[in-house]
Amino acid sequence: MAEEQPKVEAAQEAGEQEQVIDPWSVSGGADGRIDYNKLLEQFGCSKLTDDLVARVEKLTGKPAHPFLKRGIFFAHRDLQEILDCYEKGIPFYLYTGRGPSSEALHLGHLVPFMFTKYLQDAFGVPLVIQLTDDEKSLWRGIDIDEARRLARENAKDIIACGFDVSKTFIFSDFEYVGGAFYRNIIRIQRCVTMNQVRGIFGFSMEDNIGKIAFPAVQAAPSFPDCFPHMFGTRKDIRCLIPCAIDQDPYFRMTRDVAPRIGHQKPALIESKFFPALQGESGKMSASDTNSAIFVNDTPAQIKDKINKYAFSGGGATVEEHRSKGANLAVDVPWKYLNFFMEDDAKLARIGEEYGSGRMLTGEIKKELITVLTDMVSRHQRARAQVTEEVVDAFMAVRPMHVV
Amino acid sequence: MAEEQPKVEAAQEAGEQEQVIDPWSVSGGADGRIDYNKLLEQFGCSKLTDDLVARVEKLTGKPAHPFLKRGIFFAHRDLQEILDCYEKGIPFYLYTGRGPSSEALHLGHLVPFMFTKYLQDAFGVPLVIQLTDDEKSLWRGIDIDEARRLARENAKDIIACGFDVSKTFIFSDFEYVGGAFYRNIIRIQRCVTMNQVRGIFGFSMEDNIGKIAFPAVQAAPSFPDCFPHMFGTRKDIRCLIPCAIDQDPYFRMTRDVAPRIGHQKPALIESKFFPALQGESGKMSASDTNSAIFVNDTPAQIKDKINKYAFSGGGATVEEHRSKGANLAVDVPWKYLNFFMEDDAKLARIGEEYGSGRMLTGEIKKELITVLTDMVSRHQRARAQVTEEVVDAFMAVRPMHVV
Repeated sequence: MAEEQPKVEAAQEAGEQEQVIDPWSVSGGADGRIDYNKLLEQFGCSKLTDDLVARVEKLTGKPAHPFLKRGIFFAHRDLQEILDCYEKGIPFYLYTGRGPSSEALHLGHLVPFMFTKYLQDAFGVPLVIQLTDDEKSLWRGIDIDEARRLARENAKDIIACGFDVSKTFIFSDFEYVGGAFYRNIIRIQRCVTMNQVRGIFGFSMEDNIGKIAFPAVQAAPSFPDCFPHMFGTRKDIRCLIPCAIDQDPYFRMTRDVAPRIGHQKPALIESKFFPALQGESGKMSASDTNSAIFVNDTPAQIKDKINKYAFSGGGATVEEHRSKGANLAVDVPWKYLNFFMEDDAKLARIGEEYGSGRMLTGEIKKELITVLTDMVSRHQRARAQVTEEVVDAFMAVRPMHVV
Repeated sequence: MAEEQPKVEAAQEAGEQEQVIDPWSVSGGADGRIDYNKLLEQFGCSKLTDDLVARVEKLTGKPAHPFLKRGIFFAHRDLQEILDCYEKGIPFYLYTGRGPSSEALHLGHLVPFMFTKYLQDAFGVPLVIQLTDDEKSLWRGIDIDEARRLARENAKDIIACGFDVSKTFIFSDFEYVGGAFYRNIIRIQRCVTMNQVRGIFGFSMEDNIGKIAFPAVQAAPSFPDCFPHMFGTRKDIRCLIPCAIDQDPYFRMTRDVAPRIGHQKPALIESKFFPALQGESGKMSASDTNSAIFVNDTPAQIKDKINKYAFSGGGATVEEHRSKGANLAVDVPWKYLNFFMEDDAKLARIGEEYGSGRMLTGEIKKELITVLTDMVSRHQRARAQVTEEVVDAFMAVRPMHVV
């Protein structure tokens, strides 16, 4: 996978600038913001309705994840078919991933994994997690051994999200490409032309041939027979992919190819982007440590970054704030709380208080600092438990009795 | 590898038609014939001189193979450097291959393997043989399981050429792509753009992305660290590739990339094409059984095909033949004898007798029938010894103490 939470490029010009979202860059429209409804239309995904969320709750007997209730995962393809399978007792599996381009993940990187962990628990299903170290070598020129090292380091942060080792297979492409997986890669590549990847991904004649071929590597894990140690040669097991919506082009391609090679189309459940501290039009980047909260930040760093850099929708002066209230649509602390504050009632109260101006920017930031410090320190404790042996256990190609 | 002995397309027009040779098709110039000197110039290979052949004989202490003495292997790149290594006791290895697109090999397919067998014996060096079942799936749409089956069947014919199992690793891409091999594939792909493969191989926007990426799969075995079970992580072991000259584009690309990824350039030793029974401008094809002698032909089939189809340079009538002699430059029995008659003195005598008209077409064909019947029946006996277990032994990824 590419960055699950890609860079958000500031709008270059005012006026009619079109938003552009693909797996490698995200740039909003004229105001730097992303119009998600427009994206649904452009990509042809379906809106994740309240009815579907209610059905998920009913089928799993568990409350919906906040990401679902709050519209953070907001789009899908064929989710209802996955729910039909589940209802009938037909097995399905989850597939997600990450491009290991940096040592430390930021909070945005955790979003798909936190959600996938919820899905695994709620449905009790197997999960495959692809670490595209090959992609990062092809795109960023990262040395191959360094990409493999980053893949293992990132695996530790992923494992710290709490996945069930008996149902979860984590693999890096440099380790796992081959065999049944490689055969599916070739099957897919045979169905896709250079013209098509130019259309879907914007590849040009100057792009290296590894990039051009790579979409098949990300597509293939959508098919269960890539994992003989989990699913044997079964082709009847559906796949559900939780990911950020910028990954949709990969899976549009995959869904187009699937029936041509005798496979079922993967279903998707897709999220909005996690904003940079500087707001939706800022860039979240590992090289700019002030652009994001990282999972290895200290409490002091978290406090400092939020107080200094988190873009506020509050009034310019206390007086103005008290009279007009905060603009929640652009307020980063409010957005972050929407991702990570679990208590619905408290969140609603904060929204009301802050939106009306009764709560001040300093106060909502304090709430956020508490939430994130707690979350990050829990993550750090969990990650400290993830030894090399634990990584090996998740990444071992071993018989898994999951279906 | 693509067809080692590719189709020879008849010249479409008279006049200025240029010969076009690439790994998928070979079409001669205006007269349907291939100008090998022009090819040397076009490709930038070196001519394999008598001096070099003499040096091979001297270094190995063995007579040069007829393919060397008779100019069938006629071109090279950096062969002198390989001989320098050998002289100094620095190890090198051989790499050749085949695209398994048909069940039965024809005699042209045997040429590189017979020559490679000689090189392995003469220099006592390790050998890797790539079966590009993935390529055949990508180009010909051959079903993947069928391509894998053909790879194993072809491996039997290759093994029947007499390779030393203690020094020879045969692999199919569908089985062996992965690990160190895949990492080299990505390293190579990173260095080659779509524009470059368009220039080298003529790929277009309508080609599938697997084809576009494939050249790296054929390039990678030129680097010893694709084979950790043979060479560990050593990068100082040179590679010599015996192949037909149509494969040169792959290795021009490989040689261009090699220094950029910290590897030595592979050396090459390259052959002319083995002609179809109908002559140099005919097509040798598995679907036209009368175009070639196949390794599973019966003595009766061999006799029949040569008598009926082998293009003769002899005179139209006995009288004309006696007076003018045969045109050896287009005579297929003569060309075939040059490949496969071991006895130099006898071959020279036949050339003289037949060229002068004293020997008749029926007589040279009879000589050829004897040579080929003997050779094919020896091959068939050897192949009958190649059990599935023998194939497994050659194809096993096992520790090989070869350097």
